[in-house]
Amino acid sequence: WDLIDNQDEDRLQRSYKFPDFKTALEFTKKVGDAAESEGHHPSITTEYGKTTVTWWTHAISGLHRNDFIMAAKTDEIAQNF
Amino acid sequence: WDLIDNQDEDRLQRSYKFPDFKTALEFTKKVGDAAESEGHHPSITTEYGKTTVTWWTHAISGLHRNDFIMAAKTDEIAQNF
Repeated sequence: WDLIDNQDEDRLQRSYKFPDFKTALEFTKKVGDAAESEGHHPSITTEYGKTTVTWWTHAISGLHRNDFIMAAKTDEIAQNF
Repeated sequence: WDLIDNQDEDRLQRSYKFPDFKTALEFTKKVGDAAESEGHHPSITTEYGKTTVTWWTHAISGLHRNDFIMAAKTDEIAQNF
């Protein structure tokens, strides 16, 4: 995961490679479903062969413990792809 | 649709607002499925209450007629949300 700066807000960001668009979209769906379950929502960019997930906590304009937990959960989901 | 410049490549971009993350993700899924059907793939960013779709043609590093057709198709999908 990279620590990125978005308009002075710290965010966690990681890109995952996939063989095609369809698989990238399936991964996006799984990460989105996990986000819904936890009530904590990332930004997810889906492209041909690549999905980029960004976690941060809007309410504090930065990173909260939850973001690191969700980053780990995102990695777990990726292991099944 | 906005015409944006990404590293000297023209791209078509539009954001759609939704009431929550779940609906934004459902829209992403529909646009992704349409992309798969047509064999032409956008970048789609899914966030809480917002999905941003970007169309361009990698092979020509810019815009092709297909991008405008897919932009119109994306608007059609949005009308059902």
